[in-house]
Amino acid sequence: MQIGMVGLGKMGGNMAERLRRGGHEVVGYDRNPEVSDVPSLKDLVDSLAAPRTVWVMVPAGPPTHATIEQLGELLSEGDLVIDGGNSHYVDDQKHGAQLAEKGIGFVDVGVSGGVWGLENGYALMAGGSEGDIRRLWPVFETLKPEGDGFVHAGDVGAGHFAKMVHNGIEYGMMQAFAEGWELLEAADVVKDVPGTFASWRHGTVIRSWLLDLFVRALNEDPDLSDLQGYAQDSGEGRWTVQAAVEHAVPLPVITSALYARFASRQPDSPAMKVVAALRNQFGGHAVASKEGAHAKGADSPGADVAPPREVS
Amino acid sequence: MQIGMVGLGKMGGNMAERLRRGGHEVVGYDRNPEVSDVPSLKDLVDSLAAPRTVWVMVPAGPPTHATIEQLGELLSEGDLVIDGGNSHYVDDQKHGAQLAEKGIGFVDVGVSGGVWGLENGYALMAGGSEGDIRRLWPVFETLKPEGDGFVHAGDVGAGHFAKMVHNGIEYGMMQAFAEGWELLEAADVVKDVPGTFASWRHGTVIRSWLLDLFVRALNEDPDLSDLQGYAQDSGEGRWTVQAAVEHAVPLPVITSALYARFASRQPDSPAMKVVAALRNQFGGHAVASKEGAHAKGADSPGADVAPPREVS
Amino acid sequence: MQIGMVGLGKMGGNMAERLRRGGHEVVGYDRNPEVSDVPSLKDLVDSLAAPRTVWVMVPAGPPTHATIEQLGELLSEGDLVIDGGNSHYVDDQKHGAQLAEKGIGFVDVGVSGGVWGLENGYALMAGGSEGDIRRLWPVFETLKPEGDGFVHAGDVGAGHFAKMVHNGIEYGMMQAFAEGWELLEAADVVKDVPGTFASWRHGTVIRSWLLDLFVRALNEDPDLSDLQGYAQDSGEGRWTVQAAVEHAVPLPVITSALYARFASRQPDSPAMKVVAALRNQFGGHAVASKEGAHAKGADSPGADVAPPREVS
Amino acid sequence: MQIGMVGLGKMGGNMAERLRRGGHEVVGYDRNPEVSDVPSLKDLVDSLAAPRTVWVMVPAGPPTHATIEQLGELLSEGDLVIDGGNSHYVDDQKHGAQLAEKGIGFVDVGVSGGVWGLENGYALMAGGSEGDIRRLWPVFETLKPEGDGFVHAGDVGAGHFAKMVHNGIEYGMMQAFAEGWELLEAADVVKDVPGTFASWRHGTVIRSWLLDLFVRALNEDPDLSDLQGYAQDSGEGRWTVQAAVEHAVPLPVITSALYARFASRQPDSPAMKVVAALRNQFGGHAVASKEGAHAKGADSPGADVAPPREVS
Repeated sequence: MQIGMVGLGKMGGNMAERLRRGGHEVVGYDRNPEVSDVPSLKDLVDSLAAPRTVWVMVPAGPPTHATIEQLGELLSEGDLVIDGGNSHYVDDQKHGAQLAEKGIGFVDVGVSGGVWGLENGYALMAGGSEGDIRRLWPVFETLKPEGDGFVHAGDVGAGHFAKMVHNGIEYGMMQAFAEGWELLEAADVVKDVPGTFASWRHGTVIRSWLLDLFVRALNEDPDLSDLQGYAQDSGEGRWTVQAAVEHAVPLPVITSALYARFASRQPDSPAMKVVAALRNQFGGHAVASKEGAHAKGADSPGADVAPPREVS
Repeated sequence: MQIGMVGLGKMGGNMAERLRRGGHEVVGYDRNPEVSDVPSLKDLVDSLAAPRTVWVMVPAGPPTHATIEQLGELLSEGDLVIDGGNSHYVDDQKHGAQLAEKGIGFVDVGVSGGVWGLENGYALMAGGSEGDIRRLWPVFETLKPEGDGFVHAGDVGAGHFAKMVHNGIEYGMMQAFAEGWELLEAADVVKDVPGTFASWRHGTVIRSWLLDLFVRALNEDPDLSDLQGYAQDSGEGRWTVQAAVEHAVPLPVITSALYARFASRQPDSPAMKVVAALRNQFGGHAVASKEGAHAKGADSPGADVAPPREVS
Repeated sequence: MQIGMVGLGKMGGNMAERLRRGGHEVVGYDRNPEVSDVPSLKDLVDSLAAPRTVWVMVPAGPPTHATIEQLGELLSEGDLVIDGGNSHYVDDQKHGAQLAEKGIGFVDVGVSGGVWGLENGYALMAGGSEGDIRRLWPVFETLKPEGDGFVHAGDVGAGHFAKMVHNGIEYGMMQAFAEGWELLEAADVVKDVPGTFASWRHGTVIRSWLLDLFVRALNEDPDLSDLQGYAQDSGEGRWTVQAAVEHAVPLPVITSALYARFASRQPDSPAMKVVAALRNQFGGHAVASKEGAHAKGADSPGADVAPPREVS
Repeated sequence: MQIGMVGLGKMGGNMAERLRRGGHEVVGYDRNPEVSDVPSLKDLVDSLAAPRTVWVMVPAGPPTHATIEQLGELLSEGDLVIDGGNSHYVDDQKHGAQLAEKGIGFVDVGVSGGVWGLENGYALMAGGSEGDIRRLWPVFETLKPEGDGFVHAGDVGAGHFAKMVHNGIEYGMMQAFAEGWELLEAADVVKDVPGTFASWRHGTVIRSWLLDLFVRALNEDPDLSDLQGYAQDSGEGRWTVQAAVEHAVPLPVITSALYARFASRQPDSPAMKVVAALRNQFGGHAVASKEGAHAKGADSPGADVAPPREVS
């Protein structure tokens, strides 16, 4: 079928390509003229036959809000907008209501698969009406992987909610592997750490795509010495925790994984300054001062246990 | 090759079977005479040609200690003992030293694969000398899965250390899925929760064997209503945390997963009694008393937010 | 000075009393006619001389929204509203803006002290303009405790933000005591647990008002056997975590304390059903089924270690 | 009474001084001849009249083991040894048994109070027999603070167990204050953070000695800019967690506080390298490489949200 694709970055560009390979007619728009098929969003809309289908694949937040608002002005009754980005599910509900006022349909789709999706297909979690989902089926069928990586999760918002929780689980799994690796390296009982991870790909309980990817990373850099211990978060981990707090659901693993990322971005932990200050106050414990020198003692980074004769 | 197998339970029995299918000659001993090939451990040893190979597959702790001590008395120089159970790696080092005094070799093997191992093979993590590992290669080759689920992880103890960390990672991954499921169920935005998990098996970042198993469980019981929220721990999660504490490695996710299991086994949280007592002391907050009645107010389980007019 | 007090519950009633004892003229309104001085909010407003001061002490959320909206209609330019409840700081900013449109001032005050405040005074954290705070000083001076339990924390919202963080810290401290108590009871090395807590009131690093209160609770019920391990949360712990997530601040202790409360209110952990289901799938581990019976094995609540011969 | 004091560091020296001020006769030994009253441990023993009392106040672990072993050789039946250091309670039980073989008594005492103990007294938690405790009462009475900071916690080991849990609680409380401070600073809603903490000293639920000390620290350095976010741990936090794991007691707050200290000592988180590696593998997410440059994108430390168009 004919589809407009707004946003031709790493994700949108590859998805447009996969759709074309699958026989669909894709008109792509990107603000970068070098990759765009048309000079403006208006031209994109004009180039599609009604009823139109426009897939939005731009960053969540203001860029998506702006794109959907513009589309609301440009499109007509009976057209259909899909938000395939990483929007918050609450925003979907707003966007859906906004477009519905003009008789324009709205479907939110959580998309997983990263840079591998072009070849392997994209896992899709969709939220919207039965009718809109059915109408989009040819598109979903082309994008999704073999097997059945598609779910109609529920009403508008449910697609991104599912994707949000998927990412929360992903945070927890990644951190579980990360902690296991750190312990293996620190304890130095296992001498072949990369070989151990490689062996786990077969027959174990923890075999998984993330493990496959980690073994791939270790093949390139066996002790990860080229990397900094620093990780961004994409927003969905935060939303997962906030949704959990709202619903009184305890989420210790996913939250710990999120906090580990927060902490990894702090060159110096503010909270630990307080702990250092308190230790100094009550115990005369040495503290590591800014100058790198130590205020009052033998306490030194790297030593595992506090200095003698300080009893708190 | 010829091998003695001590312990013919769910794991040992299936491993003996897989070895036989692979052309090995297995003599099995179990204290349960119905499944045992020989009446005693001594008979097992006597029935093997020197140099003997005896694989021990009994519960960790006292049963393994006792078996290895007995084997130390029954076996001769040049024989070889494998501990394939879930022993603590520190115990391996003791067992290895104990047997070495008599010239008997020792290899520890962490085994993963559960009830699926008979058909799929068992992931194996081995600790011991290069020579002992080479000698056992025919056995490992038969037991391990297609691909290469075998690693010589290091010296004696390294096999079980690797398995211990594997299980720690497993705890974290399981809890990540568990938290995701709980949030999806509680928020009720996604209407097709089992379908969502099923769809994640293809193309997503979190696809994994554990996800496959979870989808299998949901097929049998879509809302898990037949189960209690109660989970044992097998010792290896605890050892992982204790090893981490010893090495000053922060393990927030794996520890949270372990603590969630501890908490699941408490009919009533002792710590929360303290919190309830304190809330009552400073705020006159209602508390849930043993009788199920409420001491002083309208505070009730199920309500999400504290009663009005109580300001702490 | 003259002040109107809206909400005469446990907090508002005692505060009105403390203000009267301090020589202020208080007109109180409560929807419960038995404790109210006037029949309606309008009568309260009419009974005050301009410029009026009205302190709102009703539950956060809809009751506070409604009260402030009504006051906005009833009051006049130059009047001043104080929200002393547990409102979210974001709501304060809305309320302040709403009242400012009519020239009515607004101050938010976080109040701590619970049922002890009448005698000991209330700790006060205020947010608002310098002028409004100065105008209210006589009231603050009477309400606050000896010493100096008052802070002008910042602009509108800052008072409740400070109180929110205070409560977050409180959650962490309470949980720390709670965990210590649980461990002492479980380990049974210390024979005199109440005596140990009592001794800690003097000379230790952890001496605190919460410890005093806990000793008081243990004096009444030495093993807390009259209580259920169940604790509500008042909203402020949740907001603390949500604010932290928004600002990428890792808050492991406060979040853990909040989650422990969430978990205490679940008769059966949904997440743990998933863990049980997975253990059953891969290991044939026994699970505790709804009927209280055990599906397939010897695994039983109370036993500390998993059953023999199950290797995962 | 007459008492020998072994170890005259920050703690032992002050305790000897407080005992002398209280009228006791103290003979002190330290390996540092400048502060020692006698040239050797043998001379200390020789200078005391039987039945002797020797208080050991040296670092836990090998120094304490060695001192107690030597004392076992030098002392006689009816003498009494006190370990007032930070020993592990399991070691106490060994030391007690070792000395009991020669008819020498043993009492373990957990001591809290830090550098403030000389003036304020030391909180004491004692483990040992009723008779030994009674015999030492004059010493305890002088050392302990006003009020009653003394408890006979149980048999040998119970004193240090109680102190261990005290320190675990202390970790949790310190981290709670630390997190609250970090959030207040990060959110920047409260403009007077030191003033807010100062105000909390009166009338709030969280008033405590640690809060007093923190306010003292903020008076010296209002934004803690002189300190590094780095904190040691003294061993007792670790033992608390290990004891909890052994007894299947969930300890999320105390463990989180311990892990925060571990993490504060890592210049670069090893676990986070794994997370960064995985993000790079599946999403082409930019990673922060060792060279400080960024491998493939716009992702930068300090930015809160991941770069656009990367959908995982």
